[in-house]
Amino acid sequence: MPRIVDHAERRRAVAEVAARLVAEGGIDSVTVRDVAAKAGTSTAIVSHYFAGKRELLALTYAQAAGHARARVEAVLARDPADVAGVCEAILPLDDDRRRDWQVWFAFWGPAVADAELAAEQRRRVAGTLETLTATLRRAHEALGTAAAREEARRLLTIVTGIATQAVFDPGQWTPARQRRMLKQELARVAGAR
Amino acid sequence: MPRIVDHAERRRAVAEVAARLVAEGGIDSVTVRDVAAKAGTSTAIVSHYFAGKRELLALTYAQAAGHARARVEAVLARDPADVAGVCEAILPLDDDRRRDWQVWFAFWGPAVADAELAAEQRRRVAGTLETLTATLRRAHEALGTAAAREEARRLLTIVTGIATQAVFDPGQWTPARQRRMLKQELARVAGAR
Repeated sequence: MPRIVDHAERRRAVAEVAARLVAEGGIDSVTVRDVAAKAGTSTAIVSHYFAGKRELLALTYAQAAGHARARVEAVLARDPADVAGVCEAILPLDDDRRRDWQVWFAFWGPAVADAELAAEQRRRVAGTLETLTATLRRAHEALGTAAAREEARRLLTIVTGIATQAVFDPGQWTPARQRRMLKQELARVAGAR
Repeated sequence: MPRIVDHAERRRAVAEVAARLVAEGGIDSVTVRDVAAKAGTSTAIVSHYFAGKRELLALTYAQAAGHARARVEAVLARDPADVAGVCEAILPLDDDRRRDWQVWFAFWGPAVADAELAAEQRRRVAGTLETLTATLRRAHEALGTAAAREEARRLLTIVTGIATQAVFDPGQWTPARQRRMLKQELARVAGAR
């Protein structure tokens, strides 16, 4: 099925370029013409993927979420109990991870008033919470499911709080400071005591 | 100086209406005509306050920040050492506070690619950090400035993390859950041990 493979590949390339442009200049700076030029395809093709700003947001959001998921899966493939690794896969510790947060920020404003976009955001947070809960249980056998979920919620809250500050203030929130705060909070996980 | 008073009052009224519309429908849904109608003024006056989306964002951001600051000041006027009260003044525990966060989210997307808007965000976070540090020092005399700042940073990170999740998921993040997590974290403040 070369046609389908080609279609998926082209969609991925368009989404990747669009996500990068959103992260660099905000959603309003992204034009169909720019994306087409940088993805090496036609404006007709790009227009097919995003009829409007809402489709563009959904596409780039999913792309950034895909990056994060792939990083988390790579961590867990190496060590299924690496709680710190899962958190670090999400934190804006380098330009790639920072760009993903910039894409999510572009999404949050419109999502506030859009029930479907808000539901997408909730689904993603819920998925990350499940992954983190399972990882915590593997790391700390004594931790029950309910306690693990509470600890996962606390860690995800810390990670989100760090990220939303660090994206605007990378000077204050160096990778070292992000890791230090994460380490302190990991030391407080109930099962780790 | 009735003219100046009137000007300031009118600007406040316009900003208030604009902030409410941004929170309800996102920045792109706000029209000069709507704001003018709801603020009981002319489109010419409203156009004067926001020549474009960027000015509108800056105006509504400042308005939401003003709400938060007023709530924090009211808490500190009653009890200058009320750390929990300062945090609760910021958390989205009711519709008013939730609306402020919705306005900030609308701002974050564009701020990612706009050095001036990003600087405004950093200034606001730095101001809140100072207030929280001073409040912590009043609450826990044994806490030095550096330790108080670290604890303030941790609390503000928790508050920000809670808020960014709660705005999209008020069903999961009830006021009770927000307060419970805050209480747990306050119990962990170094000087409170």
